[in-house]
Amino acid sequence: MTVTDQAGAAARQSASPTGGTPAPAQPAAVDPAAVDYVHGVARRARVASRRLALLSRADKDAALLAMADAVDAATGQIVAANAEDLQRGRDAGMATGLLDRLTLDDDRVHAVADALRQVASLPDPVGEVVRGSTLANGLQIRQVRVPMGVVGMIYEARPNVTVDAAGLALKSGNAVLLRGGSAAASSNAALVAALRSALAERGLPEDAVNLLSEGGRDAARALMTARGLVDLVIPRGGADLIQTVVRESTVPVIETGVGNCHVYVDSSADVQSAVDIVVNSKVHRPSVCNAAESLLVHADVADRVLPALLAALAAEGVTVHGDDAIGDAARAAGADRAYQPIADGDDDTEFLSLDLSARVVGSLDEALAHVQEHTSGHTEAIVTADRAAARRWVAEVDAAAVMVNASTRFTDGGEFGFGAEIGISTQKLHARGPMALPELTTTKWVVEGDGQTRA
Amino acid sequence: MTVTDQAGAAARQSASPTGGTPAPAQPAAVDPAAVDYVHGVARRARVASRRLALLSRADKDAALLAMADAVDAATGQIVAANAEDLQRGRDAGMATGLLDRLTLDDDRVHAVADALRQVASLPDPVGEVVRGSTLANGLQIRQVRVPMGVVGMIYEARPNVTVDAAGLALKSGNAVLLRGGSAAASSNAALVAALRSALAERGLPEDAVNLLSEGGRDAARALMTARGLVDLVIPRGGADLIQTVVRESTVPVIETGVGNCHVYVDSSADVQSAVDIVVNSKVHRPSVCNAAESLLVHADVADRVLPALLAALAAEGVTVHGDDAIGDAARAAGADRAYQPIADGDDDTEFLSLDLSARVVGSLDEALAHVQEHTSGHTEAIVTADRAAARRWVAEVDAAAVMVNASTRFTDGGEFGFGAEIGISTQKLHARGPMALPELTTTKWVVEGDGQTRA
Repeated sequence: MTVTDQAGAAARQSASPTGGTPAPAQPAAVDPAAVDYVHGVARRARVASRRLALLSRADKDAALLAMADAVDAATGQIVAANAEDLQRGRDAGMATGLLDRLTLDDDRVHAVADALRQVASLPDPVGEVVRGSTLANGLQIRQVRVPMGVVGMIYEARPNVTVDAAGLALKSGNAVLLRGGSAAASSNAALVAALRSALAERGLPEDAVNLLSEGGRDAARALMTARGLVDLVIPRGGADLIQTVVRESTVPVIETGVGNCHVYVDSSADVQSAVDIVVNSKVHRPSVCNAAESLLVHADVADRVLPALLAALAAEGVTVHGDDAIGDAARAAGADRAYQPIADGDDDTEFLSLDLSARVVGSLDEALAHVQEHTSGHTEAIVTADRAAARRWVAEVDAAAVMVNASTRFTDGGEFGFGAEIGISTQKLHARGPMALPELTTTKWVVEGDGQTRA
Repeated sequence: MTVTDQAGAAARQSASPTGGTPAPAQPAAVDPAAVDYVHGVARRARVASRRLALLSRADKDAALLAMADAVDAATGQIVAANAEDLQRGRDAGMATGLLDRLTLDDDRVHAVADALRQVASLPDPVGEVVRGSTLANGLQIRQVRVPMGVVGMIYEARPNVTVDAAGLALKSGNAVLLRGGSAAASSNAALVAALRSALAERGLPEDAVNLLSEGGRDAARALMTARGLVDLVIPRGGADLIQTVVRESTVPVIETGVGNCHVYVDSSADVQSAVDIVVNSKVHRPSVCNAAESLLVHADVADRVLPALLAALAAEGVTVHGDDAIGDAARAAGADRAYQPIADGDDDTEFLSLDLSARVVGSLDEALAHVQEHTSGHTEAIVTADRAAARRWVAEVDAAAVMVNASTRFTDGGEFGFGAEIGISTQKLHARGPMALPELTTTKWVVEGDGQTRA
């Protein structure tokens, strides 16, 4: 619900008592030097994008493999640059989890390079004929995938995203502007230098891959408002980052990744499946968007499921923020140390931690109504043995992914077999769910005739 | 390039010196009563949309046929209501062309009803499996088309759009909020009354089809900013209307229909084809977005093409706004009465009249560069007998439709065989080119398993 192409930031900044139309591209409050810098990079990227759009798959794959080799060859410099970032991070008191995401060692650099080789092995989305026909008048029409043009990525201090995004953009024929977290500045500079040198060696435009290294936060805002120069901005990171981009961008945005995912254990659920799926959905990787944040249990199965489930969650260190019925069950199961009463807002909280809101519901209808009210439109799962309940869940829940008897953790481009993932869209326009190469393209209609005119 | 989900209008209106985040849904400058009215209608539409999403094709088609019959049966009231609108229009000095578009007689009402029968005959986009597979772990995944939810239409005084939009929305499982031009208020009220009565008779929610008849312009602005209540707004009409919606909407928008379409006559063009295609593209229906507005002629073919072409355009009453070479040719062809020198801005003007900008270019490269600079991304045509030129045109021109040896007038949902058209998108996100039923849907991923968890 949040593709954006808004004049938000610009409008807020240039609003005046006379109510004149703002100039979206150069809001007054953004440092003009940052705007000039970003627009200059974007213009060069656009020139590069016209060449990229015409490259064959063979040319793009060869470039991707050369980029992978260049990253491998530069491992020493990259790890050294990363060490500078890590030192600054430690000095600034960066949290352990963030430091871990920032860290590159030899193995991780090699994994990053291998991801480019993986992208090279994927089919080229450009040129795919989506549909086509020959009309009664003999005109041949076909809808063909073509690159978007220039794509901006705004993300946090995760250097692997730099390389993933560059690889996916190149494969889909797009030039890319990378605005990574400043805490990864040295790592990103070393990585992008390797990528650009590989492009130059293959006679391809270096400006296919651009790191926005100057201008601080104003550069990010200039990127979001470079309408006409940038075709699409994808934010990737936490909810705050995403909402800021969605709110302030005048360039079209694809919203990614906030997930208040539910698991509903239906009255007919298999108890072991319910325990396995809820535990896996919650604890397999609690910090990501497809982790479960809310549990709903049908009252008819609560006595059978909750003892084992609450004990298993407690054993994994999960704190269950539950209603009174959950509390009673937790005490009965001896899992009350892991229980606390559900608080206002817990139903809508994406904890991203070993916390889970939980309620007992009286019916499938009640579960559906709860999900309808609290879903973030990411992933919603039912555990059931009942065919009718499964069919209602699939039909009535409005989310990017609806699951029957499977962990919410499966909503993922890699798991879906896409081979790569640029993010998970939680909006309805253009892309919904895991996004990979086709989602970085648009289409054009090609119409071929022999002089046809309309009667 | 203009899907919008912006906080533009809201932001402008609520901007304050303290720079607080605006509340997009209720900008201060919009009449609160209009906001209440529109939000109330939108909430009822959302409730209705949940039922619509679950209807079978048979139910929807039966409803569409009942709606068609109801329109036919109400012909007398509809024509009488239309007469009121026409009288008000004449009293207000409405232009002849607009009065014609507003007019409904018995035959036109019947045509409007028949359009609903046509929509009934089209395949249901909802439930279409776009792609799917069985993963290595046994999970079955499929991407399925589902309705958007609640769609808003903002358009001018063309009563047929009211019925077309209602029919397409219903067929695609969406509830619709219709904000038509106030000049058609009585006609629209009569039409929507007939449509709603047919829905009620079939036991379906009347709130599937809603006319925003109150609140004046503030109702349109409340609709554009009803984020969370409305999933998509489609503006349909002139460039001013579209740009206003794109700029002010906080709800996602699909930009439609501005077309500065070019025809390029290549050096190898067949002379008769060139004349036929240029004339047809320009004069077949000059007031619409797929009419040609700019002509480019390769210098090597100018002497052969221009005499016949300029004479033919003059005979059709076209004024050619040309460069000096065109002027010389016009004088030589005795067509100088239809020539005037090209003025600043003509290259970028969507005339929507019997006017055409025209230039002689020295090469295909020059033509491609000109189109790259001046295209609105709608439809761009080449007339050529040269295969390489055709392939370069198709590959290098960045537009919703690229044509070889065919009139620009073919960019149209009806001509493409879609059976209906809700507009022509000139943006890159979600939909590009003629939009019909599939473009009114989004997708969801359905994942079915047997207890799978992630390792």
